[in-house]
Amino acid sequence: MDKPLILVTNDDGITAPGIEALVNGMKKIGNVVVVAPDSPQSGMGHAITINNPLRLEHVHLFEEVEAYQCSGTPADCVKLAVDKVMHRTPDLLVSGINHGSNSSINVIYSGTMSAAVEGAIEGINSIGFSLNNYKFDADFEAAAHYAVKISEQVLKKGLEPGTLLNVNFPDLPLEEIKGLKICRQARAKWVEEFYEREDPYHRKYYWLTGKFVNKDHGEDTDEWAIQNGFVSVVPTQFDLTAHHFISELNTWEF
Amino acid sequence: MDKPLILVTNDDGITAPGIEALVNGMKKIGNVVVVAPDSPQSGMGHAITINNPLRLEHVHLFEEVEAYQCSGTPADCVKLAVDKVMHRTPDLLVSGINHGSNSSINVIYSGTMSAAVEGAIEGINSIGFSLNNYKFDADFEAAAHYAVKISEQVLKKGLEPGTLLNVNFPDLPLEEIKGLKICRQARAKWVEEFYEREDPYHRKYYWLTGKFVNKDHGEDTDEWAIQNGFVSVVPTQFDLTAHHFISELNTWEF
Repeated sequence: MDKPLILVTNDDGITAPGIEALVNGMKKIGNVVVVAPDSPQSGMGHAITINNPLRLEHVHLFEEVEAYQCSGTPADCVKLAVDKVMHRTPDLLVSGINHGSNSSINVIYSGTMSAAVEGAIEGINSIGFSLNNYKFDADFEAAAHYAVKISEQVLKKGLEPGTLLNVNFPDLPLEEIKGLKICRQARAKWVEEFYEREDPYHRKYYWLTGKFVNKDHGEDTDEWAIQNGFVSVVPTQFDLTAHHFISELNTWEF
Repeated sequence: MDKPLILVTNDDGITAPGIEALVNGMKKIGNVVVVAPDSPQSGMGHAITINNPLRLEHVHLFEEVEAYQCSGTPADCVKLAVDKVMHRTPDLLVSGINHGSNSSINVIYSGTMSAAVEGAIEGINSIGFSLNNYKFDADFEAAAHYAVKISEQVLKKGLEPGTLLNVNFPDLPLEEIKGLKICRQARAKWVEEFYEREDPYHRKYYWLTGKFVNKDHGEDTDEWAIQNGFVSVVPTQFDLTAHHFISELNTWEF
């Protein structure tokens, strides 16, 4: 039987150590094609490029793996890969491994997850992987190990249409990880604070900073899982309808 | 009693006719502050600016309204407005009126909606408004009329925490609009096609184009509503957890 066809992308850029770890893991279970941004795209959310043309360039970065760098966002990469690079719809799309967690509300801002959402919209089994460590030289070994296990299950069982997985890894060596937990997205948020500075011409400018605040004390959340040594797996959807609020709204007098 | 404090933003940029129509409507029911991008930001999804500083500039564009243009994305505008401009949490955030529909899957790519989502995350009653007409000189009169009615109800009743409204207007004069329908997000998608061209140096580049395909025949969807002369109102949430899929995933052998 043919090996599954796996599209790998990310948002930290094609030269990030996290994508290398993911590519090496996926090579064990499938035929891998990489289409990833040529520069870091963190915080790009589900941006797409409509006012500029896109470049796509063949690169030799991974042994025995067809790879392309793209000038666009993570969502652009997926769209271009499906339309211009892959010779058929891939069996699996994996995005990451992100340098930094995408648990909780971070799913909204995450380029890593937007690539996976785009894959799910295209009808591809899609997973976003992120490690709870922002550093360039983070250790991705345990994360890559679990990424392979989870990908194998998804390839075997298939996800429900309209859903994808948001997987976050605690920053721990393999032997200290307690296992895997199916979770819900924690109700946490960033409390913003902008640094205010003056440029050499005395005009103000601002840098976005923030503090992550989690007031959700549930033990079924992704935040709880990664803080307590588990790999969190959140089934995620792109139907944003708040179905539970429809009947209430129908009683309002517009 | 004090008039409600209303933050107005958009993604087409602060000089777009759609935001002018919205500001003029909101002036009738509250004290308005505008913080909006200094250039068009369509397709920006929930992008935030983390690698560049942001500029914020006081402008005189709207009569008797405090207004600022910002160099960032729509989500940046909301974050900056809350942290640096508003003197208290606004009672209402309205985003738009967007030139072009944000029904169905467009909610994912929409800068207009990302501003409203950001407001909801901040705990503000938030609404995104979009007109099903991309043209610069579209007629926003009917849309502004309904935007005021809907905003009044939201100010009176308050939305549930974690929810916001995605409102789309059909491109019709007021007397031809059949009313307002509470809807769910249609399961429709864009089928991408990239134009492939060559630059003067014989290097390829690509332009994103696509065809909107709706295979969802439900009459309770936003697409159905705007195609049939109704204003669509979709209660929207930023908890992306596919709660219905959790028990199934718990049976998988990871």
